Amino acid sequence: MQFLSDNSAAVHPRVWEAMRAADAADSPYDNDAFSQRLDEAFSALFGRECAALWVATGTAANCLALATMVPPHGAVVCHREAHIEMDEGGAPGFFLHGAKLILADGDHAKLTPETIRPVLDSIRDDVHQVQPQAISITQASEYGCVYRPEEVVAIGALARERKLGLHMDGARFANAVAFLGCSPAEAAGPVDALSFGCVKNGGMSAEAIVFFDSALADVARYRRKRAGHLQSKGRFLAAQLLAMLENDLWVENARAANAAAGELAGSAAGRLLHPVEANEVFLSCTPEERERLREQGFGFYDWGPGAARFVTAWNTRAEDAGALARAIAGL
Amino acid sequence: MQFLSDNSAAVHPRVWEAMRAADAADSPYDNDAFSQRLDEAFSALFGRECAALWVATGTAANCLALATMVPPHGAVVCHREAHIEMDEGGAPGFFLHGAKLILADGDHAKLTPETIRPVLDSIRDDVHQVQPQAISITQASEYGCVYRPEEVVAIGALARERKLGLHMDGARFANAVAFLGCSPAEAAGPVDALSFGCVKNGGMSAEAIVFFDSALADVARYRRKRAGHLQSKGRFLAAQLLAMLENDLWVENARAANAAAGELAGSAAGRLLHPVEANEVFLSCTPEERERLREQGFGFYDWGPGAARFVTAWNTRAEDAGALARAIAGL
Amino acid sequence: MQFLSDNSAAVHPRVWEAMRAADAADSPYDNDAFSQRLDEAFSALFGRECAALWVATGTAANCLALATMVPPHGAVVCHREAHIEMDEGGAPGFFLHGAKLILADGDHAKLTPETIRPVLDSIRDDVHQVQPQAISITQASEYGCVYRPEEVVAIGALARERKLGLHMDGARFANAVAFLGCSPAEAAGPVDALSFGCVKNGGMSAEAIVFFDSALADVARYRRKRAGHLQSKGRFLAAQLLAMLENDLWVENARAANAAAGELAGSAAGRLLHPVEANEVFLSCTPEERERLREQGFGFYDWGPGAARFVTAWNTRAEDAGALARAIAGL
Amino acid sequence: MQFLSDNSAAVHPRVWEAMRAADAADSPYDNDAFSQRLDEAFSALFGRECAALWVATGTAANCLALATMVPPHGAVVCHREAHIEMDEGGAPGFFLHGAKLILADGDHAKLTPETIRPVLDSIRDDVHQVQPQAISITQASEYGCVYRPEEVVAIGALARERKLGLHMDGARFANAVAFLGCSPAEAAGPVDALSFGCVKNGGMSAEAIVFFDSALADVARYRRKRAGHLQSKGRFLAAQLLAMLENDLWVENARAANAAAGELAGSAAGRLLHPVEANEVFLSCTPEERERLREQGFGFYDWGPGAARFVTAWNTRAEDAGALARAIAGL
Repeated sequence: MQFLSDNSAAVHPRVWEAMRAADAADSPYDNDAFSQRLDEAFSALFGRECAALWVATGTAANCLALATMVPPHGAVVCHREAHIEMDEGGAPGFFLHGAKLILADGDHAKLTPETIRPVLDSIRDDVHQVQPQAISITQASEYGCVYRPEEVVAIGALARERKLGLHMDGARFANAVAFLGCSPAEAAGPVDALSFGCVKNGGMSAEAIVFFDSALADVARYRRKRAGHLQSKGRFLAAQLLAMLENDLWVENARAANAAAGELAGSAAGRLLHPVEANEVFLSCTPEERERLREQGFGFYDWGPGAARFVTAWNTRAEDAGALARAIAGL
Repeated sequence: MQFLSDNSAAVHPRVWEAMRAADAADSPYDNDAFSQRLDEAFSALFGRECAALWVATGTAANCLALATMVPPHGAVVCHREAHIEMDEGGAPGFFLHGAKLILADGDHAKLTPETIRPVLDSIRDDVHQVQPQAISITQASEYGCVYRPEEVVAIGALARERKLGLHMDGARFANAVAFLGCSPAEAAGPVDALSFGCVKNGGMSAEAIVFFDSALADVARYRRKRAGHLQSKGRFLAAQLLAMLENDLWVENARAANAAAGELAGSAAGRLLHPVEANEVFLSCTPEERERLREQGFGFYDWGPGAARFVTAWNTRAEDAGALARAIAGL
Repeated sequence: MQFLSDNSAAVHPRVWEAMRAADAADSPYDNDAFSQRLDEAFSALFGRECAALWVATGTAANCLALATMVPPHGAVVCHREAHIEMDEGGAPGFFLHGAKLILADGDHAKLTPETIRPVLDSIRDDVHQVQPQAISITQASEYGCVYRPEEVVAIGALARERKLGLHMDGARFANAVAFLGCSPAEAAGPVDALSFGCVKNGGMSAEAIVFFDSALADVARYRRKRAGHLQSKGRFLAAQLLAMLENDLWVENARAANAAAGELAGSAAGRLLHPVEANEVFLSCTPEERERLREQGFGFYDWGPGAARFVTAWNTRAEDAGALARAIAGL
Repeated sequence: MQFLSDNSAAVHPRVWEAMRAADAADSPYDNDAFSQRLDEAFSALFGRECAALWVATGTAANCLALATMVPPHGAVVCHREAHIEMDEGGAPGFFLHGAKLILADGDHAKLTPETIRPVLDSIRDDVHQVQPQAISITQASEYGCVYRPEEVVAIGALARERKLGLHMDGARFANAVAFLGCSPAEAAGPVDALSFGCVKNGGMSAEAIVFFDSALADVARYRRKRAGHLQSKGRFLAAQLLAMLENDLWVENARAANAAAGELAGSAAGRLLHPVEANEVFLSCTPEERERLREQGFGFYDWGPGAARFVTAWNTRAEDAGALARAIAGL
């Protein structure tokens, strides 16, 4: 009964089918029939023209996207607990050639114009300080919280005002859309580039970088190859993404994961450290309580000395979520 | 009847099976049971202790390997037509932080001590010139030619004498081993790191970097993550590699590809631009001749104005190879 | 009556003389007679073997030093207000190829083992987080405060325990030594590399990087050239440094600057934001008070809304310091 | 009697005077009165608006200029013997974050449209090959040969046609102008950025990067700081450059150096390996002949096994040049 992470869950059967269907030899790299359909598929999804590139990991998606917006002498404003700051092994420093991450605060790992603005204002506009060129936000956030459309719009307005690019790390974008019940376009808002997650949501090895500015996509294509991320059998990545989009499998999977998380949240109200709006549940929890849960067969991560993180996935079994919910309630 | 490249061929059924068998959730990244077996499997293969990391592409394999040997202010000596120089979109410059490729010559895209030494000797040992720190050779070479064990040994001796690391790009290492009929250890010789190809040989999206020096592997683990190449469902990559090694499927596949190339070569003796020792055939061929072949349904790349390249794969059909051989003979 | 900074003061007459004496043609780069004496001069100064390289700026000194200790995938722990973090325009990201600065706290911009240790302990030892490889401290600190020898020793012990390099930004090392009244070796403690300042102390365009590990110096020589910092008439930089060391001009100059700062501090006790241990004075000061000082002809920087920074130099005139002291007392 | 290089010659008296006159404290970095006059002074010199930044070395000038034109995933076309390829210790790889130098040929280290075009044409326009973004030429060339205005115009036309930036390494631009007897604008032609040399021509430590596109200059200012090249007493660099421009001292100095080289050339006609158009003379010369010259007290570099290089400077004494000319004639 694993609630460690959604990032190693099984692959959805329809993703497997799509991959098998892509087996026959085709053009290499992204010249195959599957990859060639991505722009259109994502343009339809977002209701406006965009260019979509597959890559194998969220780290690559985030960093390639940011590298198109930020020169080596620039900086990205992100949350102090953003994945790009905390968990990508310095990949932004690598892909952006030493550009800086400038950290801002905000409840539940969400930025707001109010937390971003003072950070921007504290930077002297001279060559001695690194000048920001983009903002990056995570939808849903690292604490499983979701930006409302108007919140993204407000950050986008600030970005435009300050002439900054706007990037969204959407490793769990599906869970945010499922929670919001809105269109993908509303959940993404005025971003220039979106890392559209798939691996945590039933995929195997494909994420999409969706560019709403084709000039950025053109640069990203060169950067992707240069980073060793242009797979010759890219059709298998494109097929995963197309399978996800077909019949809204991506939203369906996210709804299932969210529902399981919701069940856990319902049993744990007093312990919740963050609102449960996606598929992650952060609970205050003593070491002894965690021990008791583990003895009952539940797997999860400690989150500092007094907390635990539980993550559900597209395929979390109802009986497992129910059992964990009861166990939490019984602590 | 495609002879464009082996890099987009179908995936071998046993690779598919192994991937399916790895579907059940497991630990993420390379902590899963499959990835954990790689060091042992490759150590058994090479008869000495080594550490093996999966990555998705040959470009990543080559550049991560080289990045462990060469500091940013250093250089790599490689052949003027090496893949890292010609076809990796500047990835060595990216992964090695601006380190330089120093180009040397050699017939059939193979280096020799005799072609390397004058290049090394031409570099003044002062801070104004970039000092080489490694040599990279390709086995089989970019023209489908194979280094004999004693040739690798000789280059290795030069590397040691000059205190240079030795890297082997083995995107088609299997084809070289199949040709040589020797052990993998003999075909690799005294290299410090080997990019062990799988994608071109029936795999989907996995190559191995095999380090014969564990200190290099330790650095590579950090660099892999930093380059966005640490997939969370890495078990699917490990499973591909393990399937390849099992019962020598990798050699079997390469033998099939080599045999098909051999059949083409047999029909084209007078036109051969390079000895056919792996699965690539380079023929002198006029534009008109190429046109006639294409009219008969054969796909292949032009190789400059007067030549063509034909590549066979593990699954090239005997009838296709036969038909092409006849067509070439009939030109 | 300028108290803006020591970084643009006039050049000391003995530095000018030394530069003139170096005019005659000599070997280029650092092969000249002056540069060749640096290792010996600094070895004598520190009482142990060291290698000293000139560069033109403190930023280059700091970043070249750190680049010898920290690989691109590593990190440097420094104070949140360290010059390398706040005022070098992202140079550490450039010279260290994207390595990260990890920020720690401490009063008066000084680190302590107690502030460093929890930062180190918060970093998971896995590939997802950037691993520190060095600590950098500033002597005297960005707030003009001085590490006592035992404080440097304690940080050095922590560095060794954690296998981290130790770098000291000594842009105002002279002022620290003048304050401590100890030997340079005691003020530097167990550092691996020291940026030895000269420009702020009566020099024109030379700082020294003093390496107490010659292997680091060997790397730095290549990196210096690669960064465009190897001047062909390097003799003029070496001459500045040698002039500074001769008859302890460097300490004499620093004493003069410190004394002037001490006079300001004596008149401003209630306003002091930091102990005045070098040549910088930070005062709490309302906008109106600052206005009144400026009306009297004093130049200085605001330091946030309620404070001001005054910096003295080797050549601050006694009457100017006295006048400012009286003006501050009279606020 | 040194003819090793012009890069370590004495500093011209008027440069010394100008530096002394800049001693009084002033604003730091490039906010001082001297630095603030540079744009105007160079705009007057070139008869069109430009922005000029000082840096300490030609390597920094070249690489900062190129870094404004070429993204990390791009490339620069230069001559196979260009200084940036041969003698800058890999600085282009550092400043341009791994961008590539693509080498072309041409007599006397000069490029022509005819040698550049096939190189450009050989690059496939796909992500697997690095795409050039700029051309760099050296005026006067590494063999002391001068591009005629129409030659620069022709290269500029090709650059525009292919949408490439054009950079000129003018470490010895003065010598080229002195030779051509034309205006600086004619000698520079349609370049986007010019490294305007001063150190080899009587300066101490200042070169100018002259940008004819102010957007590039804006980027360069950040990059200069980030590279540790923003000196706090920058007024001393600006003063050198202004002194050089005043009364055309720069051309006067170059004329003197050229004249001395001309005298050598006149005595050595049969041995000349390249036309002598600036201040460098390359002679075919046996080891024995070189030995005889050295026995007579002449210093110079060997240039491979059968040649020698003699460089004159602004202050080469007439008697020394005469003596060397006679010695060469007498070989």
